Amino acid sequence: MDIHQYLDQQRQRIDGFLEQSLPDSLRDPEKLYESMRYSLLGGGKRVRPILTIASAQALGCDDDAMLSFAASLEFVHTYSLIHDDLPAMDDDDYRRGRLTNHKVYGDGMAILAGDALLTMAFELCSQDSGGHGLTASQQLQIVRELAYGSGHQGMVGGQVMDIQAENQEVDLAHLQKIHSHKTGQLIRAAVRIGGIIGRASPIQLDSLTGYAEDIGLAFQIADDVLNMVGTREELGKDAGTDEKRGKQTYPSFFGVDGARQLGEECVARAIDRLKAFDSKADPLRQIATYIVERKS
Amino acid sequence: MDIHQYLDQQRQRIDGFLEQSLPDSLRDPEKLYESMRYSLLGGGKRVRPILTIASAQALGCDDDAMLSFAASLEFVHTYSLIHDDLPAMDDDDYRRGRLTNHKVYGDGMAILAGDALLTMAFELCSQDSGGHGLTASQQLQIVRELAYGSGHQGMVGGQVMDIQAENQEVDLAHLQKIHSHKTGQLIRAAVRIGGIIGRASPIQLDSLTGYAEDIGLAFQIADDVLNMVGTREELGKDAGTDEKRGKQTYPSFFGVDGARQLGEECVARAIDRLKAFDSKADPLRQIATYIVERKS
Repeated sequence: MDIHQYLDQQRQRIDGFLEQSLPDSLRDPEKLYESMRYSLLGGGKRVRPILTIASAQALGCDDDAMLSFAASLEFVHTYSLIHDDLPAMDDDDYRRGRLTNHKVYGDGMAILAGDALLTMAFELCSQDSGGHGLTASQQLQIVRELAYGSGHQGMVGGQVMDIQAENQEVDLAHLQKIHSHKTGQLIRAAVRIGGIIGRASPIQLDSLTGYAEDIGLAFQIADDVLNMVGTREELGKDAGTDEKRGKQTYPSFFGVDGARQLGEECVARAIDRLKAFDSKADPLRQIATYIVERKS
Repeated sequence: MDIHQYLDQQRQRIDGFLEQSLPDSLRDPEKLYESMRYSLLGGGKRVRPILTIASAQALGCDDDAMLSFAASLEFVHTYSLIHDDLPAMDDDDYRRGRLTNHKVYGDGMAILAGDALLTMAFELCSQDSGGHGLTASQQLQIVRELAYGSGHQGMVGGQVMDIQAENQEVDLAHLQKIHSHKTGQLIRAAVRIGGIIGRASPIQLDSLTGYAEDIGLAFQIADDVLNMVGTREELGKDAGTDEKRGKQTYPSFFGVDGARQLGEECVARAIDRLKAFDSKADPLRQIATYIVERKS
């Protein structure tokens, strides 16, 4: 398989679903939907929903009916970017090569668009219909995974830890903890939700969870490296911002090469977690490698 | 029954559950939990969770196991207050007689505390355990009601309409629409969730929904009147703010007396919706009356 082709195909599949879930016909209140669409449909690698799909595929499930669950992760991710970019938080002007949401729609609307996207994520994964064939109990488990991964014990908790660590001396254990919450928990939820969709056995779900934790760390290390060595053109957002903000990162502990090596070790561990899976898990394996090799 | 005694008892019951759901032992990250607790446990009438309880009681269910569902409405309500009070929105300094969340914890933390409370609402109502005896399918229906009532087609949508209507000429139909979204949909969700907990028949759920829509309107009319005639001491927040912001309200259309009369008509209609219910629905009936007679 060609991983780039695979990622393109899955991204298009998700983009199609996302557009359908916030169609132009949704208009009242117009500014709210415009603002939601601006950020949700404004590009993006769709890593989290692709992980959900790849995880379900590893278990033999590749039904379009799962797209609402996969998409819910992109709704959560998008809301978190909108809120993180606000002047009261990271105060970023660019994201994915375009002005950030609040620069276009104002802070108030950006807050509300984020709130609406977060809420809609739960609407999407609690939907009655869809022909996904999951039991209500499995669907409820998906809601729980999403809530846990994105809330106080997950992403939001990590974001708070991250803000509080700026300009503070942070040791490596604390850095890991910040990232395992801020980035890791939502990636973990993405993979586990795919597992639930594919009716993973408890042992399979454990393996997938381990895989997710390893690639979550690899993802963050790669992001830190890109922030240090990437250019604004490659990233679609300002580069070198971590250093300017006095944030400790993996490269600041290990140097760029040391951090890269650490990332590769995580990827190897992640792939090893999948040894009981057959070739249907190849997308998961190749995504792990892609994560540390990507340029943006 | 004495409605004030009833409301006190139910408020204490909910407050107990809320304190338990965010215990002091939850500390990491400390500032996040402090900020969440500051607003969630900082008083409040607990109208929405009480409506859930009263609605379940009307159908003969009064089990403590339903408190997590009732509480989820207070989590959503509290998050909405924190975000609404932000400088980027209403820019209010006082709420429930105390400084608003962002005045104490800063704008960034207030946004994140709101995000965490919203997410935790969904965690609460998707919980696995609890001995509530609901089927997974009923519980999923509760998640849907909460998401619908609080999201783009509900509360958040209404908040956007409300902001956009400031200093604009708004006719009565548009005013009703704003309020039916901003306040009405979450009250509707509160009552309907109580109905689901009490295993309402479709006809009973329809009656409860009609009741909720009528008291939602009554509630908003009463709030508008209080904002005009109340004092800061009574309200625990600034009075007369609608007029200062050039917001159209029920009293600005009908005068204070006219608005009060309209509120009473809504209450009468709400009570009439419950005619097929026996005395177990008396709390719902008396809450309707209380809503227009309250002083804060």
